[in-house]
Amino acid sequence: MRRSGAGGSGSGTARRNRKSSSSSGSARDRGARPRADGGMRVVVPLQGVVQGRGGLVIGSLIPCALFYFFQLYIKRNRAPRPLPPPPPAAAASESPPGSASTVVSPIHRSLSRGLLSPRAALPAPSARGAAVRDDDSLYYAGLRRCAEDPYHPASNPAGIIQLGLAENCLSLDLVVRWMEEHAAGAALMAGGEDEEERELSVRGLATYQPYDGILALKMALAGFMRQIMKEVSFDPSQMVITSGATPAMEILSFCLADPGNAFLVPSPYYPGWDRDIKWRTGIELIPVPCRSTDNFNISITALEIAYNQAKKRGIRVRGVLISNPNNPTGRFVPKQTLHDLLEFVTEKNIHLISDEVFAGSTYGSGKFASVAEVVDDLEDFDRGRVHIIYGLSKDLSLAGFRVGVIYSYNESIVTAAAKIARFSSVSTPTQRLLVAMLSDQKFISDYLKINSERLRKMYRLFVDALDQVGIECFKSSGGFYCWADMSKFIGSYSEKGERKLWDRLLEEAKVNVTPGSSCHCIEPGWFRCCFTTLREQDIPILVERLKKVTDSHKLNR
Amino acid sequence: MRRSGAGGSGSGTARRNRKSSSSSGSARDRGARPRADGGMRVVVPLQGVVQGRGGLVIGSLIPCALFYFFQLYIKRNRAPRPLPPPPPAAAASESPPGSASTVVSPIHRSLSRGLLSPRAALPAPSARGAAVRDDDSLYYAGLRRCAEDPYHPASNPAGIIQLGLAENCLSLDLVVRWMEEHAAGAALMAGGEDEEERELSVRGLATYQPYDGILALKMALAGFMRQIMKEVSFDPSQMVITSGATPAMEILSFCLADPGNAFLVPSPYYPGWDRDIKWRTGIELIPVPCRSTDNFNISITALEIAYNQAKKRGIRVRGVLISNPNNPTGRFVPKQTLHDLLEFVTEKNIHLISDEVFAGSTYGSGKFASVAEVVDDLEDFDRGRVHIIYGLSKDLSLAGFRVGVIYSYNESIVTAAAKIARFSSVSTPTQRLLVAMLSDQKFISDYLKINSERLRKMYRLFVDALDQVGIECFKSSGGFYCWADMSKFIGSYSEKGERKLWDRLLEEAKVNVTPGSSCHCIEPGWFRCCFTTLREQDIPILVERLKKVTDSHKLNR
Repeated sequence: MRRSGAGGSGSGTARRNRKSSSSSGSARDRGARPRADGGMRVVVPLQGVVQGRGGLVIGSLIPCALFYFFQLYIKRNRAPRPLPPPPPAAAASESPPGSASTVVSPIHRSLSRGLLSPRAALPAPSARGAAVRDDDSLYYAGLRRCAEDPYHPASNPAGIIQLGLAENCLSLDLVVRWMEEHAAGAALMAGGEDEEERELSVRGLATYQPYDGILALKMALAGFMRQIMKEVSFDPSQMVITSGATPAMEILSFCLADPGNAFLVPSPYYPGWDRDIKWRTGIELIPVPCRSTDNFNISITALEIAYNQAKKRGIRVRGVLISNPNNPTGRFVPKQTLHDLLEFVTEKNIHLISDEVFAGSTYGSGKFASVAEVVDDLEDFDRGRVHIIYGLSKDLSLAGFRVGVIYSYNESIVTAAAKIARFSSVSTPTQRLLVAMLSDQKFISDYLKINSERLRKMYRLFVDALDQVGIECFKSSGGFYCWADMSKFIGSYSEKGERKLWDRLLEEAKVNVTPGSSCHCIEPGWFRCCFTTLREQDIPILVERLKKVTDSHKLNR
Repeated sequence: MRRSGAGGSGSGTARRNRKSSSSSGSARDRGARPRADGGMRVVVPLQGVVQGRGGLVIGSLIPCALFYFFQLYIKRNRAPRPLPPPPPAAAASESPPGSASTVVSPIHRSLSRGLLSPRAALPAPSARGAAVRDDDSLYYAGLRRCAEDPYHPASNPAGIIQLGLAENCLSLDLVVRWMEEHAAGAALMAGGEDEEERELSVRGLATYQPYDGILALKMALAGFMRQIMKEVSFDPSQMVITSGATPAMEILSFCLADPGNAFLVPSPYYPGWDRDIKWRTGIELIPVPCRSTDNFNISITALEIAYNQAKKRGIRVRGVLISNPNNPTGRFVPKQTLHDLLEFVTEKNIHLISDEVFAGSTYGSGKFASVAEVVDDLEDFDRGRVHIIYGLSKDLSLAGFRVGVIYSYNESIVTAAAKIARFSSVSTPTQRLLVAMLSDQKFISDYLKINSERLRKMYRLFVDALDQVGIECFKSSGGFYCWADMSKFIGSYSEKGERKLWDRLLEEAKVNVTPGSSCHCIEPGWFRCCFTTLREQDIPILVERLKKVTDSHKLNR
């Protein structure tokens, strides 16, 4: 677009010059000398300048300057890009903004006239506000559709079964029991013995606390994370607590990259990142495809290529963003790959962000290794480029509590993020409640053990159920998902075909799953299916519903 | 800078052309004809083109195109502006990014070499992250200084007395008592009768809830706001709940204006807005000074001038931002001024944002009127340009709960803001607790009545105390502040003089106040002093401390 603008402006300049020379004899012709040959009679506006002294410089300078001011004019008059035309309301007003002058005449207003005349248009929302308002994807469309008509065995048996939302309902009973027994006292009275101390403690609930979380919660979280990511210790002073992992990711991204910069993101990746990172930070996410033939392993070669391509396009890559256990595939990132990633980001002098919100929700045979563990193994490694996102929504089933963590080895980033946490603080009563819960060692270790067993069991049941209808799943080890290959059920091997199947699953089978395209998977036909929102007794119903679609596909062939 | 760039590139182009014509006879000369006169022997690169056919267009086009690509080159190579030079670490790596090529050779890495060699520098934080990290003002410096060494009559009698933080400790005992009596049950069991219902209710605490707040809290808040802003009713569907008024202001700003756009803000204004709005949204705040001689009234003429000046500078003004009751002056914005403001924003087709977080914390003789009340009076007025910020930190002394409200009459803005609330949600246990508290009609009306009485009493005591040491206060009606005129105690009538006095108050008198300059007040010597963090028995100590500074000033004269 800018290219055509350049051409257009060039001829525009020429046109303007022609006009001025023909109408007024033109001041520019002053430098022209009388010519001996009469052969050339083309009207050439810059001829005089070119032939005169200083022609070299001025002959190039004048078109350039005209072009420059033309660009400036265009820029001024169209900036912020998707602006609507000047509102008609303004034109109707007493002093139209178009006629702005330095000396403002005294303003006479009649209230009735100014306020009560019907206005044609409201001021538009900001361009970015409108973009957020209109932003949608199948992932969110499915969630919304499901929220409107949720399946319930008794009250809404024909409703949509939710396999799209990453919520763990398998162990909620444990949380509920703890809350019933402890919450009341724990939240309010923490630390209170005598009357005055108790009042101080309750006062502390209401008054301003550090935006990035109270120290007691940071300490409790460090202990909990240590328990989950075995053999690793976490330092509360490197922690920033936010109202969920979502703002944790956004705040960290804001601190690591500027608008127009990019992160390389091995894909398929969590569909929420497109909102969490792009909406407000202006950072670009560059998917770096992993392939089923390679077990969706992260390829350093592919990262290298993507890095160089971005550089060629003039985009500065500021980091690599991974999730581990991977969302949506449920795969653990192997320790060797983490090593390779650390080497890659060191070589490029960029950051590594590891989203480990499912670190404690594992059920596979392999062993999960946090990037923190790998970093701890390396003695001379400069950790300041490594950052971890964590939260309690997944591993403690506390999505409604909105508690996320930025854990960074970079002091500078921790300082900035702690300041930005003013926009995403957790309320103090909730922090108190969590301090009590996380400090209850017996509850935590019981919960982790039982939850892991239940996850493993439900995963097996779910995979078997899909197998019954001919759907194969990628072998996953953590998280709440199966990564299911339904490519044999799509009509055309394309995103369109995948979308059609997704639509049939939602509208005919009444099952909401997340299509791979929402996760930027380049191979059509993969779907993310969350199995932790199901109960065992729902599985036969699910199978029956899926069969509707898979069987009809077989018939159509 | 760009201007000089234009000139430079013009001559650069000329230089390049000269070189090509002299060295190789130049392909561009193809169009030149043999000339009869021998008089002109200047080397003119574009002469041939200009004299040949198509000279008009191409003669202007070539310099323009060259200039355009030169600009493009410059832009590519310097974008994102405040970048540090390429990190030395990259240069030391195996494949320096400078030598990026399309075909990536297979990567051979030795782990030890890549990771363990000491690196000279870490990747820098983003430019904006660094800006946030380093951002500071006397307002925040004072708060920090005070937090390090807070006054306490028993444990730290030499500490700093906090008059800088807008926290209301006068009525905390009421909140504490309610919490002790009701919190435990209220938070958890809300709405639970039988066993199953109760479990569902507690489950609802842990699972995902709407990011922009549960409906029950919106309804309770609408009722509370109605009680505070008499005669006005609020619609829960126009409400977005956020984790504090701070993110409410940021999210609303994001939805109303794009980076580089501006809000006009009558000054003095709340010093936090510079962080809340500027840090992440890239919106400019243009202070529009109100004057002491005019009782710090908002002047529409001044707004008009500022609007036109901004327009001249190419800045698009998207709204006017006010606080009512005003922070820091404590003044109510008169109903007539609200009318005038509505007319002004209608005429300019921009938005009006009214921050009314102190609406329920009034003590003056006048009557507070919300912009919602004025809007309700106007029948044909198009409300979609009016937005209110509210929260519970001030009026219910619940700063630690982090609950803010965006109330907008614009559906489009509500939709966008509700989506962005994913970054600033309030935890469900806290929402439940608040539903119970706000629904307790007796508690709420008692609280509002008693709190108002205590505010009035403390305000009188505080103003009298300042009067004892010769400090006069602006007559305020709401909020937690006195707006004190200490101009007679500053050495030089300038920002520097004000800063010096602030420093003496902090370090000699051990009293932290907010200097007017932090509020963008253009008259030096005004200070914002919060009186709601004091207890009555602290006042004599405060007077004694202030005297140190005021008396020594008199001696020095």
